[in-house]
Amino acid sequence: MTKALSLGIDIGGTNTAYGVVNEQGEILYQNSIATKGYVTAYLYVDALYRHIVQNVPPQYLKEVKGIGIGAPSANYYRGTIEHAPNMEWTGIIPLKSLIEDRFKLQTWVTNDANAAAMGEMLYGAAKDMRDFIMVTLGTGVGSGFVSNGKLIYGHDGFAGELGHVIAVREGRACGCGRRGCLETYTSATGIVVTAKEFLDFDNKESELRLRKNISAKDIFEAALNQDEMALSIFEFTGKILGQTLADAVAITSPEAIILFGGLAKAGNILFEPTKKYLESNLLNLYQGKVRLIPSLLKESDVAILGAAALVE
Amino acid sequence: MTKALSLGIDIGGTNTAYGVVNEQGEILYQNSIATKGYVTAYLYVDALYRHIVQNVPPQYLKEVKGIGIGAPSANYYRGTIEHAPNMEWTGIIPLKSLIEDRFKLQTWVTNDANAAAMGEMLYGAAKDMRDFIMVTLGTGVGSGFVSNGKLIYGHDGFAGELGHVIAVREGRACGCGRRGCLETYTSATGIVVTAKEFLDFDNKESELRLRKNISAKDIFEAALNQDEMALSIFEFTGKILGQTLADAVAITSPEAIILFGGLAKAGNILFEPTKKYLESNLLNLYQGKVRLIPSLLKESDVAILGAAALVE
Repeated sequence: MTKALSLGIDIGGTNTAYGVVNEQGEILYQNSIATKGYVTAYLYVDALYRHIVQNVPPQYLKEVKGIGIGAPSANYYRGTIEHAPNMEWTGIIPLKSLIEDRFKLQTWVTNDANAAAMGEMLYGAAKDMRDFIMVTLGTGVGSGFVSNGKLIYGHDGFAGELGHVIAVREGRACGCGRRGCLETYTSATGIVVTAKEFLDFDNKESELRLRKNISAKDIFEAALNQDEMALSIFEFTGKILGQTLADAVAITSPEAIILFGGLAKAGNILFEPTKKYLESNLLNLYQGKVRLIPSLLKESDVAILGAAALVE
Repeated sequence: MTKALSLGIDIGGTNTAYGVVNEQGEILYQNSIATKGYVTAYLYVDALYRHIVQNVPPQYLKEVKGIGIGAPSANYYRGTIEHAPNMEWTGIIPLKSLIEDRFKLQTWVTNDANAAAMGEMLYGAAKDMRDFIMVTLGTGVGSGFVSNGKLIYGHDGFAGELGHVIAVREGRACGCGRRGCLETYTSATGIVVTAKEFLDFDNKESELRLRKNISAKDIFEAALNQDEMALSIFEFTGKILGQTLADAVAITSPEAIILFGGLAKAGNILFEPTKKYLESNLLNLYQGKVRLIPSLLKESDVAILGAAALVE
């Protein structure tokens, strides 16, 4: 009998979530370990292996036919993580071969946003879509572009870096060494910078003034309370995001753009200004034709499902 | 015996070129008529039909199995030209059905830049490439994006409008009703506007001051003479183009970008600044990996070949 299960692994900067997935896209078992705290990727892979072997029920484990992994700055063609800005290991990590050596199972690697796009296409909001853009608004901003029903990997395997499209020419300094990247504005970290700027440059009353170490969640909660400053921070964020998405639409003409990740949880508070500025910045050919929608999957599931779907 | 020839038609704002192409991509016969001067598209199609029947040698004509057309603002899925800003006919033109009714041959329609990309992929500089961007720098700016070996048409058939990506936020007014589109800077028309601005705002000596109604060609010729003003106009144009291409690379990660059309004929005078600003604006992942190259096909041939290649 051929084996029927896949192991999907979602490596984040802080945590690694994994799950055993069947052919219907059901997660039969899931768990997680910390990504941080290992001096080398080799030690991390070893710890991940032990955790999986000790925790996944053996009847699932023996049916796993392959491993799919979503990771930041991961390269599908080479099976590597290359110069990931938010990870402890620098340089080029041969993730695929480290995992294959330890697990003795064939392994596929893609970047986390591509894995999320795959999960959404198979089981979520993009089911049956052939042209869409998946945008993850987390600590950073990632994206996966699907055209003609296929992920765009590009010549070098690194396509889909919408977070590093220049949203504001000569804008905020980015971790990548350039200026004005989308992720410096529309990530959870970016919106906090916006809040600080707004509080410094405007004397308006705001409940945000009472908080120390403002988080994206604080800004969201203040916006829910109709705090004007917080609402204008989301308006600004939606403007930058909507403008940049309008340019991406002119390239791939998607049916929908799916927003996902921490900041997308703000719901209408983020979606309404983003929709408004997306629409008003679209070339007439595209106006009224591109849906901006939230992910339909649980955040903890989508990357595991998408990663597992890489297994052939 | 099955028929073996295709008719490729390249509809431009001013002229329409057509050619009979064999399966090896050789143009056996070509000719052209004016596009302008017909009150309706119906009359234009009728004139085109008569011209082709009267001029193409009958031994070729009877072997034509289908027609492929490249046209501005053309929609591959619907076979229409929709709201083309540079044509005399307004609204939505049902080009495919007009042609099929008159010629009694199955017809495929795509936009002119997509047709050029197809020609380049089959017979030109993108031979054997699976991921590249074709950019046409003519009266306007068009583009065709190829990923995974296929043209990106997008959900609605209008993908690849790089000319209407916003290169300068709140920049020059564009024919599309918005501001700052790439084509207002890096087209033959755009560079003339740049020249006028440079001449107005800078007192520097320049042979361009001696010319009335400066054209893109005048600027090119002055640059060849090492005219400093003309060189700085190309430097500025290459900067805007290079910056915008760097953002497009972050989306589709191409192996190469092919420049084509009137302005691309400036050769190194345009390519050098464009390469410099493309490279310096690329995310580190892509640096040194994307070739910027000229088309390898005669301008009059590429769109005819690409259009003919649409015939199935």
